[in-house]
Amino acid sequence: MKSVAIIAEYNPYHNGHHYHAEMARQKSQADIVIAIMSGQFTQRGAPAIFSKFARAESALKGCDLVVELPQFYALSYADDFAYGGIRTAELLGCDALAFGAECDDLEMLTAEAYRVKTVDVKSGRSYAQMTGDQAFSQPNNILAMQYIKAADSRLELIPVKRIENHYHDTQLTGRIASATAVRRAIAAGHDFSMAVPAAIDTSLAVSWEDFFPLLKYKIISHTAEELRNIYMMTEGLEHRLKSRINASQDFESYMQAIKTKRYTYTRLQRLLACTLLNITDRQTITDIRVLAMNDKGRAYIKGLPHVHTNINKKNASLYPLEVRATQIYNLVSGDRRNDFNTPVIYQRTSF
Amino acid sequence: MKSVAIIAEYNPYHNGHHYHAEMARQKSQADIVIAIMSGQFTQRGAPAIFSKFARAESALKGCDLVVELPQFYALSYADDFAYGGIRTAELLGCDALAFGAECDDLEMLTAEAYRVKTVDVKSGRSYAQMTGDQAFSQPNNILAMQYIKAADSRLELIPVKRIENHYHDTQLTGRIASATAVRRAIAAGHDFSMAVPAAIDTSLAVSWEDFFPLLKYKIISHTAEELRNIYMMTEGLEHRLKSRINASQDFESYMQAIKTKRYTYTRLQRLLACTLLNITDRQTITDIRVLAMNDKGRAYIKGLPHVHTNINKKNASLYPLEVRATQIYNLVSGDRRNDFNTPVIYQRTSF
Repeated sequence: MKSVAIIAEYNPYHNGHHYHAEMARQKSQADIVIAIMSGQFTQRGAPAIFSKFARAESALKGCDLVVELPQFYALSYADDFAYGGIRTAELLGCDALAFGAECDDLEMLTAEAYRVKTVDVKSGRSYAQMTGDQAFSQPNNILAMQYIKAADSRLELIPVKRIENHYHDTQLTGRIASATAVRRAIAAGHDFSMAVPAAIDTSLAVSWEDFFPLLKYKIISHTAEELRNIYMMTEGLEHRLKSRINASQDFESYMQAIKTKRYTYTRLQRLLACTLLNITDRQTITDIRVLAMNDKGRAYIKGLPHVHTNINKKNASLYPLEVRATQIYNLVSGDRRNDFNTPVIYQRTSF
Repeated sequence: MKSVAIIAEYNPYHNGHHYHAEMARQKSQADIVIAIMSGQFTQRGAPAIFSKFARAESALKGCDLVVELPQFYALSYADDFAYGGIRTAELLGCDALAFGAECDDLEMLTAEAYRVKTVDVKSGRSYAQMTGDQAFSQPNNILAMQYIKAADSRLELIPVKRIENHYHDTQLTGRIASATAVRRAIAAGHDFSMAVPAAIDTSLAVSWEDFFPLLKYKIISHTAEELRNIYMMTEGLEHRLKSRINASQDFESYMQAIKTKRYTYTRLQRLLACTLLNITDRQTITDIRVLAMNDKGRAYIKGLPHVHTNINKKNASLYPLEVRATQIYNLVSGDRRNDFNTPVIYQRTSF
């Protein structure tokens, strides 16, 4: 049974993702499509608009199995994000990995990935600066190159060319839209039904603003010395975080107050997510949490070691960060599903 | 200029407190009455119903100077609470200490205090059990005996017999009521004006319930190992706290879920206050924070070392716990005054 993996956030699952899943199945000729999906907090350092359970359920529209990308990696820079995804795919014994890119020429992407690596060490410049090619500054190409570098030779790599809309586009322009555009439409209360394959309960949407009181409490109640233990808290950032928190009444104005030329918005947002989630150390990937599956997914994982469809007292210690992130997410979200009472979302495959 | 100190919570300041301040002034023949008052969190381990600024302002009705009882001691058992108050009185050079008691016979109270001490070591029983006398189980007598034991011989001790209402009485029964009864009346929206010397803006009242989301976040986001650093977190209580938090939707039901025969309600509530405020260590008292004063109070502190009427960047490090408790209090309270923008409440003395 051939399997193809997709590493994704599905924040939320939209027609572009659905198309990508279909293309992954088609180009790989795989029997099963496996999504390795971010949990409650995403790579930009923000809470996902909907819970991992809701997003995993949506993903069953195009995938057969949805597992959680471990939270530490889901919150990381492209290199760690890619490493976490690839390592998960390997543990699941995936045969192929399909990923979005601005072109589907694997040879060119591979050459570019290694050329960039060489330049990188010497110049210390960003990918966009190095390549001089706008196409390579697209987030999805950056990730594509990281996947290429992180994957071992047993994993078949399948680039899928993106269509119609770019990652950064913020306007809903039709059936294929970026996740950013869909989230903005949801926040603004606009119609976005043309861009997603199934209805979504938008009353459950959350944003960083909802978590700001908790973040503020965390930063106020801990000393600078204690905050220094947080992952990514370097170069005295703890003092900057503390000095601006009392005067800030919302997340966006806090971000404006702490930002400097030295750090990107995403870098700081990711640091704040680590602070909120109290992440102090790197995580190792040993086990895999299934979020949703259909009959094909169920058959695939049968007998696979280190795969759990059910979180209970016994195995919860294998997923401390995932369980904690969900508990914190649920302090704010109206989606009350947690890792203990939502063992797995299961749908019968319709043939 | 003779001074008499009162150690109090004023939660909130009512006619009984007002009477006590008048009696303290009268019996001591002092020129100045100094209140050493708990800050944002009180001895029972609960947030004060109104901010320390609002309560200090009320206290000027009967006192000339209001200083803050350092937060660690304000949150402590009778022995540490008394030690913190007495130490503060000593630093302020007070001549006398007036305290409420169920009788005003100092000789008898002193004998009782030392008798209890002797029995205590041998039996390990509570004061009420030891004395076998209900009068001595009254919280105010327990504190009275602690004051007697903590004070050095230079401090004149003046017991003031309580009138009309007992500490534990929860019904408003007239002009003199317990603070508990006043708080309950406020919570229930009942008229309590007969029991206080001046109007209170009840819209600013807070309770533990308001802080519960922050407490829940704190307990969820920290490991048991991290929580073990909290002061008073002993005997594996951190595991008990963590195991019951997710299912609890409010403070009161959480308290019911964690309580055991082994720990009193107040002991656990105090532990939760330490958890919320992230108190990890004992505090030493070196400096004194003035909250409110009139002209007499102002004259009294003139030239006294280690007394601050203004918190600024320079001296804030002397009051880390007081500043932090206020910042956390203000996350919930509508009273926006904090230690930096409320240097001191000053009222001209009317002669």
